[in-house]
Amino acid sequence: MVERALLLLSSSRVHGYGFLEHAKPEITNFFNKRNVQTILFVPYALKDYDKYTAVVSEALTPMGYKVEGIHTKGDPIKAIDSAQAIFVGGGNTFVLLKTLYEKNLVEVIRNRVLNQGVPYMGSSAGTNVATASINTTNDMPVAYPPSFVALNLVPFNINPHYLETDPNTKHKGETRDQRINEYLEYEQQSRGVLGLREGTALLVEGQKATLLGDRNAKLFRPNQEPVEYKPNADLSFLLQ
Amino acid sequence: MVERALLLLSSSRVHGYGFLEHAKPEITNFFNKRNVQTILFVPYALKDYDKYTAVVSEALTPMGYKVEGIHTKGDPIKAIDSAQAIFVGGGNTFVLLKTLYEKNLVEVIRNRVLNQGVPYMGSSAGTNVATASINTTNDMPVAYPPSFVALNLVPFNINPHYLETDPNTKHKGETRDQRINEYLEYEQQSRGVLGLREGTALLVEGQKATLLGDRNAKLFRPNQEPVEYKPNADLSFLLQ
Repeated sequence: MVERALLLLSSSRVHGYGFLEHAKPEITNFFNKRNVQTILFVPYALKDYDKYTAVVSEALTPMGYKVEGIHTKGDPIKAIDSAQAIFVGGGNTFVLLKTLYEKNLVEVIRNRVLNQGVPYMGSSAGTNVATASINTTNDMPVAYPPSFVALNLVPFNINPHYLETDPNTKHKGETRDQRINEYLEYEQQSRGVLGLREGTALLVEGQKATLLGDRNAKLFRPNQEPVEYKPNADLSFLLQ
Repeated sequence: MVERALLLLSSSRVHGYGFLEHAKPEITNFFNKRNVQTILFVPYALKDYDKYTAVVSEALTPMGYKVEGIHTKGDPIKAIDSAQAIFVGGGNTFVLLKTLYEKNLVEVIRNRVLNQGVPYMGSSAGTNVATASINTTNDMPVAYPPSFVALNLVPFNINPHYLETDPNTKHKGETRDQRINEYLEYEQQSRGVLGLREGTALLVEGQKATLLGDRNAKLFRPNQEPVEYKPNADLSFLLQ
């Protein structure tokens, strides 16, 4: 049994940067440490798999990795079984999770990552599906998956693209914090929701979790005030 | 068979107004025309039913209506069966629809409204569940309903609290328009998504649909450019 290795990015795009560019040091550290040369890319969260894979390849090839789209392999289960590393990209979380269930990939990915230590990178929807459930996605529910339970590579939830609502807005829709608190009121057994601002990521190596990036993360837990954590904070307690 | 009567509000709150205050003329026209004295309120979208019902009662009593919370009745099915009018309030759309299914109210409400002409008012989540499906809610999926198919009192979708994203934002999460278009790409058979801005409502009387309020609505359809409709526009074509 090899320890799990996860790099969970809030987003693939950050203002002022190209696709995945803001996270280049974290990405190369993560994969190089594990001698990864080829990354299996899972494009299911967007509609055009070829186009999406081309965008990802354009970003990761200059960093030194070969990118292969899982849809170009005959059998996606075998592709996961032989992958050196997996990257699940963002898009619509509901479409992504539904497709993972339809292709019977949920348990396969979970086993490869948790029991065989295959490095997993996710961004946005790819980060959502790595957590306990997709209950705290920001996406519109355009597809109906057979469950909101996700890969459960970590036992808590993440809210990617986290941001505070402009306090001066005249809009009366719920704020992000209200939405997250709605979840925690409804799911009192939740292990918490980590609000990951754009430009940040969670690195998980075995039983250690570390906040990466240049901004704080905000942790919401049932019946508690939210807590801000600074860059490089040790968040390993969330894994217990 | 009496014709259906629906008043579907984008939101119960609008900047500068009290709860439901902005829609007072539309609400009183709608109910008075049908001699409604007592309104059965469905508070399932929020957690505290008593508190929510008190807020609604405080808004509707001065307009001349008695408000009764469905949760104070012994049997909710019987309560729907004997209701003069139904108001389904906003909150979390997923929790609301899940509860309607759990209490076996979906078909009962549908029958009362479509076949017996019981007036139905919805706001926000209560408007979402009145449409074909909840696929175009803005809410966080904090609960897992047995289906996203909703009351289907109209054959298309609504996006309540519709607004354009600030074009100067540095945030990289999807815009509202992108999310709605994601749905239409995924669901090519959709009859369309009506983006209802706060302060607007859709009035449906039999086969006639009219946009109410002081702002435009924006209609999104598969493979078409969105179209803006002005206040008082006849949107009856959406019902066919």
